[in-house]
Amino acid sequence: MASLDPGQSMVFDALYGLEFGETTPERMTATCPVTPKVLQPFGIVHGGVFCAIGETITSVGTYLGVKDAGNISVGMSNNMSFLRPITTGTIHAEAKPRHRGRTTWIWDVEITNDDGALCAIGRITIAVRPRP
Amino acid sequence: MASLDPGQSMVFDALYGLEFGETTPERMTATCPVTPKVLQPFGIVHGGVFCAIGETITSVGTYLGVKDAGNISVGMSNNMSFLRPITTGTIHAEAKPRHRGRTTWIWDVEITNDDGALCAIGRITIAVRPRP
Amino acid sequence: MASLDPGQSMVFDALYGLEFGETTPERMTATCPVTPKVLQPFGIVHGGVFCAIGETITSVGTYLGVKDAGNISVGMSNNMSFLRPITTGTIHAEAKPRHRGRTTWIWDVEITNDDGALCAIGRITIAVRPRP
Amino acid sequence: MASLDPGQSMVFDALYGLEFGETTPERMTATCPVTPKVLQPFGIVHGGVFCAIGETITSVGTYLGVKDAGNISVGMSNNMSFLRPITTGTIHAEAKPRHRGRTTWIWDVEITNDDGALCAIGRITIAVRPRP
Repeated sequence: MASLDPGQSMVFDALYGLEFGETTPERMTATCPVTPKVLQPFGIVHGGVFCAIGETITSVGTYLGVKDAGNISVGMSNNMSFLRPITTGTIHAEAKPRHRGRTTWIWDVEITNDDGALCAIGRITIAVRPRP
Repeated sequence: MASLDPGQSMVFDALYGLEFGETTPERMTATCPVTPKVLQPFGIVHGGVFCAIGETITSVGTYLGVKDAGNISVGMSNNMSFLRPITTGTIHAEAKPRHRGRTTWIWDVEITNDDGALCAIGRITIAVRPRP
Repeated sequence: MASLDPGQSMVFDALYGLEFGETTPERMTATCPVTPKVLQPFGIVHGGVFCAIGETITSVGTYLGVKDAGNISVGMSNNMSFLRPITTGTIHAEAKPRHRGRTTWIWDVEITNDDGALCAIGRITIAVRPRP
Repeated sequence: MASLDPGQSMVFDALYGLEFGETTPERMTATCPVTPKVLQPFGIVHGGVFCAIGETITSVGTYLGVKDAGNISVGMSNNMSFLRPITTGTIHAEAKPRHRGRTTWIWDVEITNDDGALCAIGRITIAVRPRP
């Protein structure tokens, strides 16, 4: 479980370059440099990268909020809308919980570019389960 | 644009190991071996990988269906529900269009494991835009 | 609980005119006549009517599948995409479960017009909870 | 088109009791009294009512923002998550646009009860089309 320490890179996330910022159950942030690794063939960041970043930070944020009660977090649904492409610079992600229930947490995710323009928004539901 | 030939690996997709199967506007399939690259810290495939695979095959499938009319495809929304984790073997993805409109295509995506069990389902909307 | 017998009209559903067809946990169908009651100001069926029909038939279908084990169904999320307006005739709805888990069922809903054209598609997640 | 004046009741919306509050492209609000008309058989507000309210206020808000340029608004997708039931009092709805693009507007919707507790959250995409 040590690997869930949000200060550590995760496996898939390390592959494409995710870097954690603030890591609390109230607010999660992360950044990711725009390198060729995260692009799709048209030269814009692959939409799946936004989904992945959102999935990671909301899962970790939920985990940080429920682990002391003996629970873990499990992704349930990931809904992402793409507004504006990112081609260079850094991907900035921020997530805040809108609902912290007994069995599910629901998060809002915002992806912005270096100018602060909103590029994608997500609503991600994370299930809370007893640690197996 | 040659890089959008679905027989070729794409940049982010190549990173995590996507391999195209059938590539037509009526049905897209792909597989991805479960290597450490696609895992999250609990040892299961990262949910973002399912989103990314879905995003790619539906974008390519739409592109194949609209390119001859001078259009391109642009991801608009990616909604994925996670049903069952995958830990080993191969990720199998299949996408079929449910709606092929003038301005949007809507696809259903199914992710299955080696036993054919449904592990994730997605509904992905791809916008059709004139080639810039 | 008698009121959950799917053969009976429900309160809100009775208001706008829902009529149940097949009512099983494997497949739910319903129809609704297009009267002024279900229209919005442009003269097309209000999108909320499609959402409502989907919510009802998937909740009832789940309930029918879980009640014998002492559980009830509770709507968790309702995602509907609108493809084509309906202006006259009858709204036809069909729902099939894609996932029947211990804690959630996920359904696909299709709304068609009298010509069988697909007018809306939904993915609705229903939570399964112990009867209070 | 007079019927789209948000001060007027709409057909389906009038049926279940929607009442508009603030009506601007920057913020839309509405309320709805909890009467038997909006309940489902368990005695809680039908989830479809939340979807319908969200659909209406985001469609009207978009319309108000695009009509002067000769456009209309058309519902594209309605994603609603249900957090907490409402059984009595008044349904309070508020919507704010998160994205105002050339072809789509994306809104966040919040449904609260009389105590201000968040009961449902929605993300609704409205297409902008030239007036036919």
